[in-house]
Amino acid sequence: MIPRYSRPEMVAIWSPEQKFRIWFEIEAHACDAMADLGVIPRANAEAVWKAKDAEFDVARIDEIEAVTKHDVIAFLTHLSEIVGADAARFVHQGMTSSDVLDTTFNVQLTRAADILIADMEGLLAALKRRALEHKDTVRIGRSHGIHAEPTTMGLTFARFYAEMDRNLRRLKTARAEVATGAISGAVGTFANIDPRVEAHVCEKLGLLPEPISTQVIPRDRHAAFFAALGVVASSVENVATEIRHMQRTEVLEAEEFFSAGQKGSSAMPHKRNPVLTENLTGLARLVRSAVVPALENVALWHERDISHSSVERMIGPDATVTLDFALARLTGVIDKLVVYPENMLANMNKFRGLVMSQRVLLALTQAGVSREDAYRLVQRNAMKVWEQGADFQEELLADTDVRAALSEAEIAEKFDLGYHTKHVDTIFARVFGD
Amino acid sequence: MIPRYSRPEMVAIWSPEQKFRIWFEIEAHACDAMADLGVIPRANAEAVWKAKDAEFDVARIDEIEAVTKHDVIAFLTHLSEIVGADAARFVHQGMTSSDVLDTTFNVQLTRAADILIADMEGLLAALKRRALEHKDTVRIGRSHGIHAEPTTMGLTFARFYAEMDRNLRRLKTARAEVATGAISGAVGTFANIDPRVEAHVCEKLGLLPEPISTQVIPRDRHAAFFAALGVVASSVENVATEIRHMQRTEVLEAEEFFSAGQKGSSAMPHKRNPVLTENLTGLARLVRSAVVPALENVALWHERDISHSSVERMIGPDATVTLDFALARLTGVIDKLVVYPENMLANMNKFRGLVMSQRVLLALTQAGVSREDAYRLVQRNAMKVWEQGADFQEELLADTDVRAALSEAEIAEKFDLGYHTKHVDTIFARVFGD
Amino acid sequence: MIPRYSRPEMVAIWSPEQKFRIWFEIEAHACDAMADLGVIPRANAEAVWKAKDAEFDVARIDEIEAVTKHDVIAFLTHLSEIVGADAARFVHQGMTSSDVLDTTFNVQLTRAADILIADMEGLLAALKRRALEHKDTVRIGRSHGIHAEPTTMGLTFARFYAEMDRNLRRLKTARAEVATGAISGAVGTFANIDPRVEAHVCEKLGLLPEPISTQVIPRDRHAAFFAALGVVASSVENVATEIRHMQRTEVLEAEEFFSAGQKGSSAMPHKRNPVLTENLTGLARLVRSAVVPALENVALWHERDISHSSVERMIGPDATVTLDFALARLTGVIDKLVVYPENMLANMNKFRGLVMSQRVLLALTQAGVSREDAYRLVQRNAMKVWEQGADFQEELLADTDVRAALSEAEIAEKFDLGYHTKHVDTIFARVFGD
Amino acid sequence: MIPRYSRPEMVAIWSPEQKFRIWFEIEAHACDAMADLGVIPRANAEAVWKAKDAEFDVARIDEIEAVTKHDVIAFLTHLSEIVGADAARFVHQGMTSSDVLDTTFNVQLTRAADILIADMEGLLAALKRRALEHKDTVRIGRSHGIHAEPTTMGLTFARFYAEMDRNLRRLKTARAEVATGAISGAVGTFANIDPRVEAHVCEKLGLLPEPISTQVIPRDRHAAFFAALGVVASSVENVATEIRHMQRTEVLEAEEFFSAGQKGSSAMPHKRNPVLTENLTGLARLVRSAVVPALENVALWHERDISHSSVERMIGPDATVTLDFALARLTGVIDKLVVYPENMLANMNKFRGLVMSQRVLLALTQAGVSREDAYRLVQRNAMKVWEQGADFQEELLADTDVRAALSEAEIAEKFDLGYHTKHVDTIFARVFGD
Repeated sequence: MIPRYSRPEMVAIWSPEQKFRIWFEIEAHACDAMADLGVIPRANAEAVWKAKDAEFDVARIDEIEAVTKHDVIAFLTHLSEIVGADAARFVHQGMTSSDVLDTTFNVQLTRAADILIADMEGLLAALKRRALEHKDTVRIGRSHGIHAEPTTMGLTFARFYAEMDRNLRRLKTARAEVATGAISGAVGTFANIDPRVEAHVCEKLGLLPEPISTQVIPRDRHAAFFAALGVVASSVENVATEIRHMQRTEVLEAEEFFSAGQKGSSAMPHKRNPVLTENLTGLARLVRSAVVPALENVALWHERDISHSSVERMIGPDATVTLDFALARLTGVIDKLVVYPENMLANMNKFRGLVMSQRVLLALTQAGVSREDAYRLVQRNAMKVWEQGADFQEELLADTDVRAALSEAEIAEKFDLGYHTKHVDTIFARVFGD
Repeated sequence: MIPRYSRPEMVAIWSPEQKFRIWFEIEAHACDAMADLGVIPRANAEAVWKAKDAEFDVARIDEIEAVTKHDVIAFLTHLSEIVGADAARFVHQGMTSSDVLDTTFNVQLTRAADILIADMEGLLAALKRRALEHKDTVRIGRSHGIHAEPTTMGLTFARFYAEMDRNLRRLKTARAEVATGAISGAVGTFANIDPRVEAHVCEKLGLLPEPISTQVIPRDRHAAFFAALGVVASSVENVATEIRHMQRTEVLEAEEFFSAGQKGSSAMPHKRNPVLTENLTGLARLVRSAVVPALENVALWHERDISHSSVERMIGPDATVTLDFALARLTGVIDKLVVYPENMLANMNKFRGLVMSQRVLLALTQAGVSREDAYRLVQRNAMKVWEQGADFQEELLADTDVRAALSEAEIAEKFDLGYHTKHVDTIFARVFGD
Repeated sequence: MIPRYSRPEMVAIWSPEQKFRIWFEIEAHACDAMADLGVIPRANAEAVWKAKDAEFDVARIDEIEAVTKHDVIAFLTHLSEIVGADAARFVHQGMTSSDVLDTTFNVQLTRAADILIADMEGLLAALKRRALEHKDTVRIGRSHGIHAEPTTMGLTFARFYAEMDRNLRRLKTARAEVATGAISGAVGTFANIDPRVEAHVCEKLGLLPEPISTQVIPRDRHAAFFAALGVVASSVENVATEIRHMQRTEVLEAEEFFSAGQKGSSAMPHKRNPVLTENLTGLARLVRSAVVPALENVALWHERDISHSSVERMIGPDATVTLDFALARLTGVIDKLVVYPENMLANMNKFRGLVMSQRVLLALTQAGVSREDAYRLVQRNAMKVWEQGADFQEELLADTDVRAALSEAEIAEKFDLGYHTKHVDTIFARVFGD
Repeated sequence: MIPRYSRPEMVAIWSPEQKFRIWFEIEAHACDAMADLGVIPRANAEAVWKAKDAEFDVARIDEIEAVTKHDVIAFLTHLSEIVGADAARFVHQGMTSSDVLDTTFNVQLTRAADILIADMEGLLAALKRRALEHKDTVRIGRSHGIHAEPTTMGLTFARFYAEMDRNLRRLKTARAEVATGAISGAVGTFANIDPRVEAHVCEKLGLLPEPISTQVIPRDRHAAFFAALGVVASSVENVATEIRHMQRTEVLEAEEFFSAGQKGSSAMPHKRNPVLTENLTGLARLVRSAVVPALENVALWHERDISHSSVERMIGPDATVTLDFALARLTGVIDKLVVYPENMLANMNKFRGLVMSQRVLLALTQAGVSREDAYRLVQRNAMKVWEQGADFQEELLADTDVRAALSEAEIAEKFDLGYHTKHVDTIFARVFGD
């Protein structure tokens, strides 16, 4: 997570201030529940809320931690400085540090997920708008980077929409994975704390109680969370790669929006580089790099070891902040993408009808030519186009073997673009609903 | 995928015979649908089914592919040899190879998922049985590998159950991710094939039609699938790691079952090594290694490139076969795990009551001692136990500052094990239902 | 490792037969050394060599292992069946299974490395030949997929040569990493075996003795080995990506060789797809997928745990066989790559001189125009070319501000291609030597 | 990279100030070289050095970049503000941004490598000191976590020394991988800049000229660099894992140093947790997570795309800062590790001689008992120790079949610890030299 690739709202989730705020809420709600249960005096529970609007002094907490080498103790000491030692004496009673740390981490992850979900909805809106706009903008479909058959730019946007819609679902599932809290004590037995405290705190924080925890919330949840982010990031790369291809000099079917003051290169003023989508390609690699350590974090020793902690201090902010930035950047790219329909047509016509060869092949077969013969007939005419720049339709018309099977009109009909786009509406209905 | 770590049912899914069988079914069902639509003659569609019970000759297909360098063409040629060139002439009409390949791959993946789901259900049954058996078997809970507070072996099994139950859900979601088929032609526009053919084929194969495809089914689905397998594998490692720890010489709270003829070591006949769970740790690494290439497969160029294919030829079988083997092996380990309750007790008592320090700390606080003083009091007695092998309870009774706050009976009560297990039933109800 | 992506010589290294052959050699050489030291009778050592030309019966060994669940014991039992129980009684004396297994694995890895090194030398020869052939074949250099300045196809081949030459060095270093053996007993103390046995065996097998081992050879060596393979694979992807770009329809500056019988697509007979380099892209992902598990294998417990073993049974063959295949395939692609110099020229001229803008910018600066003004002057003329298809040189000649700084001849000189290729010889000398 | 896991010297390498300082030096040295070649006026070159001691205003540069969206142009504009537009007008002439950026990145990486190399030398010194200190401290060697045969603590330290010594070599190789610079222009042809400028700049910065570059220095170099860091990190995890095992309650053969004010747990005051080595385990995962994105960075498009840039902005600082911190932390852990030789002896004697079974097995074989019989004899006595807590030596003496082969003295001799440590000096000489 570096400022260059960060947005403030997501960064704020991971600030020390925000973290201590959540710590405080957990402790204060726990005190309330313990007071309800008669375990601690009501007055003490109420007194803790004096810190409700306090600014926690991060530097002071760090100072204490430098001595105690324990962050939660440092925070509790500081809280005691704010609300008074007497009020604070029942705070954290029967709890273990991880009750606070893990529940907080999951609060942060669910809030991060909420932002990512909103990002994704924004991206979906942009993709849908561009899909409808270019529903009928014909361009050549390519497999292996080679011209295949016509498709439309709207279908390209629509498939990215469908992919991102799946990712929206995955993000929601990922959010649910980590939307649990645990206040279950040193080894998860609730020996020193009533399960009802956990229930109260979780309810207040919008979490479900973890059905069974040890000292920590099980890390398969977090592994699933970061794995989902890795999938989303890979889809970002997928869209970015398409745009990079479209913008390359020889293709030039679309360009990232190029603002007025922007300079493409210090050396070549004519250049307009797809730097945003190239950047997204790199950001995708970064988000993905969180997946393996998150998987390695699952196998903690016994009721917990702390190896996961340093990993999560990094990948928690890094992966969510980077993905948030990437989704927002991609939304901007899609929203403002400059599309060149005329270049699409020009590219498609580069090989003078050759892309229609599949249709001709089929027509020959249906006219009774054997599959092998039809293939050979198409191929010999195609090669003339490929090697000598001939026009495919003209060659077919001039080929007596072809003409033995197909009339002039039948051949001409094979070069109608509408043939290829006739199911676009059907597909759009499948993707966007009717 | 190597025989040593393979089970035949899962291996069979990935055999060439099985693959060609599914290819055939797709082609034959597609012919039926095309006949229904009047696109091809009914007789030809019916004639194709002559190959229904045929054994496809893998060697012959390979031979043809060596010339054509195209596997689907090779298969179609062979099919034509079986049902006759005339019957076969409408087979594959309007389709592209990937329609067959991708739909087949998803059939294989869903069948593989079905086996994994059944595996997981078997593992869950074993975990539940052992959890109930050892619900009240007390052992020390450990954080950082250090004794913390008592827990029970049943809770350990129960948390693995809960984790694997989440994994069961993840496997079902993963299955749904890849349970789609596509018969949409060269670039996904259905230019040469009616969408109703896709609908028919998918229904027959138990798949949903992919709402929008290109030449291929989008690979974010497969990335999500393999990522889920990676999470499951990490949970396997988690359980395996626990058992490896329990079996180590100094702990010896459990052992993998050791059969009669088995030799632990060529050199040290007394050794009983946790080789199965060590092996599972390695197998988890292998399954996880499929995740990154699956993520890298998402960003295909334009309407497809074939870079994903070689990856999937390997990780498809490798990851599913290895995980199937691992789940089955783990089920056996859990089922037959030899548990030593007496060693659990002996280990727990190693530090003569020290693990109860948390309770004493709390009792002191509740008796009015400040948190800092209580901590100090507990710590000074704890250090005598730690350094001099004293008995914690006796030291506390002899400490006048402690006794100023707590009576003998109050101290004694802190050493009652039932205190730690009182919520086990509650937790079991949360995990297994009532 | 699957037959489709395998070559027999590398596969043979990993066959059971070959593995047992090496096991035998280790045991037999160890017997020789022990006889030299007077530890065992000379006659017994000599008798073991009776199995020198024997075929080890893999099925029989598997059968024994099914009972003993220990592969080395199974082999020794079978060896005893061949040479006689009496001759065999001193075989393996003082050794531990890992002495055999680990030393064997390293023999296999070094032999695999030898093949990879030879592969790389073949690839280098092909790259050099093509570099020299196309030293002066001008084509446009591209950054961000956008035309930048002229370069030559020879420079492209030359940089791949330089990269693969670094990979040759890395492979040699990787080979040295794993070229050690260990015969040091159950925990590496040589308690039951003299270090001179290790020295003798290692010398016979072309290895160095591992300076300090535990039960196993330390796995940081293997991690470094597989990491090196991952780097090589990434370079394979790099070259493959370049060719895929060159072959795409709109660029078409080169094509993979397309043999006579080959069919590019079942549907579109005109298509020539860069399937080999796409395949190489996927194979690179597969080889790379061995890196993370190899890194995870390093941290074994105490003097060893066996978690690394299953990983290595897979990634050992998989990574080396796949990389061998990939290097051979890439060599073939380079060797037979069809290069289209005329298309290179046509592409370069697509923007009518625009790629020379950098030179003009410099000339203006050197003629005394401020950097900012020069940039503006170039940019305004460049935009006319970009947007209206004008000729860059003509626009500059018609721009009075430009002409105030540069004469007609000076402008014309900026469009000389030789300017860009003048240092090609220098660079070739740096890469290939003089 | 977060402050908690960072050390200032390494962080400084990656500061914007330091980056701009290196950018300046490259530009200024390039001006010198161009003046030497007569390409630009000597006075201008000299004038640039006016900024030699200037503080570059990072905020100002960011401000300019916000408009130009190009960092190098922003810097050059700011430089021009410092040294004057006239002096600055030849700065960067003929160069491209990447000439500056890539050369700078490699300067940073080599400086980072220098720190890592120094870290490693510090760690080696600590390991050697502890190895010599505990050369003869006997403890049980363990395979699979199970007692095997005696070894010494010195051998454990010595093998970590040997492993880290290999890592020192790997770090030096990694440093050499990235110790190159390139000033070769927009596509690496030196079209607008003389190769002698590159030679001069590289010499001044302690780099070698990259033999052939495109717009960028080839990324296989950086992949190899980060892969090496991943191997080193895995070795850190290896050492950390050993210590975590040694500190666990039941083993307690060593402990991390526990300072006076430190609190182990908020709840259990007696606990001393191996938190530093657990933390190192997590940090290892983080450093390793840079390897895959670095490998994915290799395959840039044509003469470059900018996807690698965002990745390197993160993993450059993250991986080096984290590994530096980890190596320093590990050095402290090793340096102050509290070793408990008496616990080592107590653990070893837990199974009353059982660990000597291998020696007895050998002795029986050498006394003429067949391998199978000897194994059976040892195993039956071993099982009595294992299951009934008997003393192995006594059982053997009482076994008439054993006594038929071995005398009392012969049996007793098998329980001599010196037998196991007799080659320690030999091994130390192999590791540390004589």
